[in-house]
Amino acid sequence: MFPKAWIEQHQSQCVNDLCDWLRIPSVSADPARRDDCRAAARWAEGRLAKIGFRTEFVETSGHPIVYAEWLRAPGSPTVLVYGHYDVQPADPLNLWTTPAFEPAIRDGYVFARGATDDKGQLFTHIASCEAWIAERGSLPVNIKFVIEGEEEVGSKNLDQFLESRASDLACDVAVVSDTSQFGPNQPAITYGLRGILAAEFTVTGPKKDLHSGIFGGAVANPANGLARLIASLHNAHGRVQIPGFYDSVRPLTAVEVASMNELPFSQAAFLAELGSVDIAGERGFSTLERRWARPTCDVNGMFGGYQGEGPKTIIPSRATAKVTCRLVPDQDPEQLTDALEAHLRANLPPGLTLEFRRFHGCPAFAVDLGNRYVQAAVAAIEDGFGTRPKFIREGGSIPVVASLRTILGVDTLLLGWGQNTDNLHSPDEHFSLADFQRGILSSAALWNRLAKLPQKP
Amino acid sequence: MFPKAWIEQHQSQCVNDLCDWLRIPSVSADPARRDDCRAAARWAEGRLAKIGFRTEFVETSGHPIVYAEWLRAPGSPTVLVYGHYDVQPADPLNLWTTPAFEPAIRDGYVFARGATDDKGQLFTHIASCEAWIAERGSLPVNIKFVIEGEEEVGSKNLDQFLESRASDLACDVAVVSDTSQFGPNQPAITYGLRGILAAEFTVTGPKKDLHSGIFGGAVANPANGLARLIASLHNAHGRVQIPGFYDSVRPLTAVEVASMNELPFSQAAFLAELGSVDIAGERGFSTLERRWARPTCDVNGMFGGYQGEGPKTIIPSRATAKVTCRLVPDQDPEQLTDALEAHLRANLPPGLTLEFRRFHGCPAFAVDLGNRYVQAAVAAIEDGFGTRPKFIREGGSIPVVASLRTILGVDTLLLGWGQNTDNLHSPDEHFSLADFQRGILSSAALWNRLAKLPQKP
Repeated sequence: MFPKAWIEQHQSQCVNDLCDWLRIPSVSADPARRDDCRAAARWAEGRLAKIGFRTEFVETSGHPIVYAEWLRAPGSPTVLVYGHYDVQPADPLNLWTTPAFEPAIRDGYVFARGATDDKGQLFTHIASCEAWIAERGSLPVNIKFVIEGEEEVGSKNLDQFLESRASDLACDVAVVSDTSQFGPNQPAITYGLRGILAAEFTVTGPKKDLHSGIFGGAVANPANGLARLIASLHNAHGRVQIPGFYDSVRPLTAVEVASMNELPFSQAAFLAELGSVDIAGERGFSTLERRWARPTCDVNGMFGGYQGEGPKTIIPSRATAKVTCRLVPDQDPEQLTDALEAHLRANLPPGLTLEFRRFHGCPAFAVDLGNRYVQAAVAAIEDGFGTRPKFIREGGSIPVVASLRTILGVDTLLLGWGQNTDNLHSPDEHFSLADFQRGILSSAALWNRLAKLPQKP
Repeated sequence: MFPKAWIEQHQSQCVNDLCDWLRIPSVSADPARRDDCRAAARWAEGRLAKIGFRTEFVETSGHPIVYAEWLRAPGSPTVLVYGHYDVQPADPLNLWTTPAFEPAIRDGYVFARGATDDKGQLFTHIASCEAWIAERGSLPVNIKFVIEGEEEVGSKNLDQFLESRASDLACDVAVVSDTSQFGPNQPAITYGLRGILAAEFTVTGPKKDLHSGIFGGAVANPANGLARLIASLHNAHGRVQIPGFYDSVRPLTAVEVASMNELPFSQAAFLAELGSVDIAGERGFSTLERRWARPTCDVNGMFGGYQGEGPKTIIPSRATAKVTCRLVPDQDPEQLTDALEAHLRANLPPGLTLEFRRFHGCPAFAVDLGNRYVQAAVAAIEDGFGTRPKFIREGGSIPVVASLRTILGVDTLLLGWGQNTDNLHSPDEHFSLADFQRGILSSAALWNRLAKLPQKP
């Protein structure tokens, strides 16, 4: 049994501790907050040291990384918990009911920047460790914390840390609480994320803008050409036309389809949220499949020629589009970026030239629902929330999950305790105290459930 | 015979007179030059009054219009000469060899803003009238001058003047010298102009930019949708796909095709001028046909979503394109703007909405090469230049030509004396003094040739 009573009895203390951390304005994007970021890192380090973790304060070229380990459970699994102490800027300040860095409790919620993203959610794992150690004197599993301070600004020093310390960070599974529940009282395991490839391409025609009367009709127009290229990326049924695009797409299993179909989904509510007039997408798939489990090819921006008021009679010299493809297992970002470029070059209308620029990509992630660690998490969440979790995926990417897979070779349990309506990145960010407590309970239960797993063969 | 000797003997006086006019910085776009514009109008009025024209200084809500008439040739045709006394701004000033409003003679050219566009070319017609009256005491035809001061800023008061004074302006043919020769010593009659329609359309999807990971694949992307719409405007052979687009296109006559094929055209020089890698356009037509005699549909500008550095993972809320179609006889701008809108609405992908905005259009113009006034102009140019003119068209529009057709019901003889390399709208604008004199001679000859036309039945 996990230390449930201790957690329930120490709820106020946990909330107070969290509030101390939330008071530190660790806005990683703001150079003026550099010392606050360091203070927030020191706070986490101190908290873990206090309960018996061996800690390191790791300097990087940006904000420091806190590493902490408790490895006194030989023979038991080793878990790596990742989280981040940095927060989004609080602007616009005037939209906060109470100041962003003066945590306030109202109606069962704690309001502060970082309340849920990610200090609040991450702190559940620190608190669960404290509970075990305070009540039992030890943890049932080995635990390593990696707490970075640059998640909100691109985690630019994280991969280097993971790579250079890979052997120290060896583990059986990773735990990240930086996602959300599916809805109130619907805890969820996010078992899949989409990957991404990003590129930009520019089509050039004449060397300068031309008079559309004098030259129009006798010169390839790069804006029309760009549009033809973009249009060539899909057929009329929303299917991407890049050769080989779907070749390595891993189909959903029957279990995945069934669990997806069980989730409540209101098309009317979805459309109201978007403000769109109709749903759209690849023919033959549901909206959730399209968002979570099907690859995409979207223009993120495009521009060329005249953008001012009224008409201007030119043929532009060039036009540019930015494109991202969301990827699913087992699509390869590098290979598909090559395929995208080849497709564009093959479809370029005559009289035009193409420049293609690739940005960083990231593969998709999905853990098998029958995976032993997933099953342990299911049981732990039932212990903590009193209800079975939903299995959900996310359409976006969480790069650290790909890094943990690539660098450390482990799967990640994405266990979100908050709601996606908790105003992450917005004014009045908050976290339900009930969810906070159920998160601590579930985390404490997870250590127990993982410890009870049969030894790996 | 026309007064050739007088013109040859008074060349210096004509140049001096033009230089007086060129010294007045009548930049219509510059509010600080308002009085200069009025002075330039007064100068033209005075010049015409001096040689015996009845003149009017017509106030408008912008710069004034000068009207002048000499109607003492009963039974002879009446000619309306249109021109403009306003000029483009002189910027960038530092690129002028001598100041823009201090006319300088170098190597047989007069350099000044307005030297060719349009004071210099227009003045040939004033000088030819002076020659006739000075040497013969009268003109062989009736002549009406309309000289406006807002051509470079959209001629926004001209149509109203033409409409309100239509009966006073009644005439048999109009003459406009605001075009160019085909090349040095290749005087030209521009017998056709393309018309234009201009529109802008915006495609809207979600009410705000969305995260391309969370929503991508399940929401119609307006940038992709806009590109599909633009791509739908042409087939792979460059043919416009708007239903009915070509229905009323008047085919070129055999004489037109023959005269076009006689014109020298170097594809290599054309490509070098454009800086494009290859020619392009509607299959089955030559480059000159594509530029002069075929309708087009060109994107002039488009924009939507993120335009900054690097990637941004959004689905934009909206995307906009600006489009102009160049039109040929007998396409109707209004009807084809309707057809464009209908085509876009019919091809709009699901999940998107379309806003369509129409700008001002203008029909194309082409005068029959067998037209009696054209034949008179051919003879007059032979008289003045000693060589037969080329028949050329222009790909652009000259709105006054459409207005003269629509409001006064007359065709226009577009007789250009300068070169399109005379730096119109650029620093060091100039006009060859030889072309200036040949223009005066041709103009004087034209009055003679028109007077000799048999009476209309």
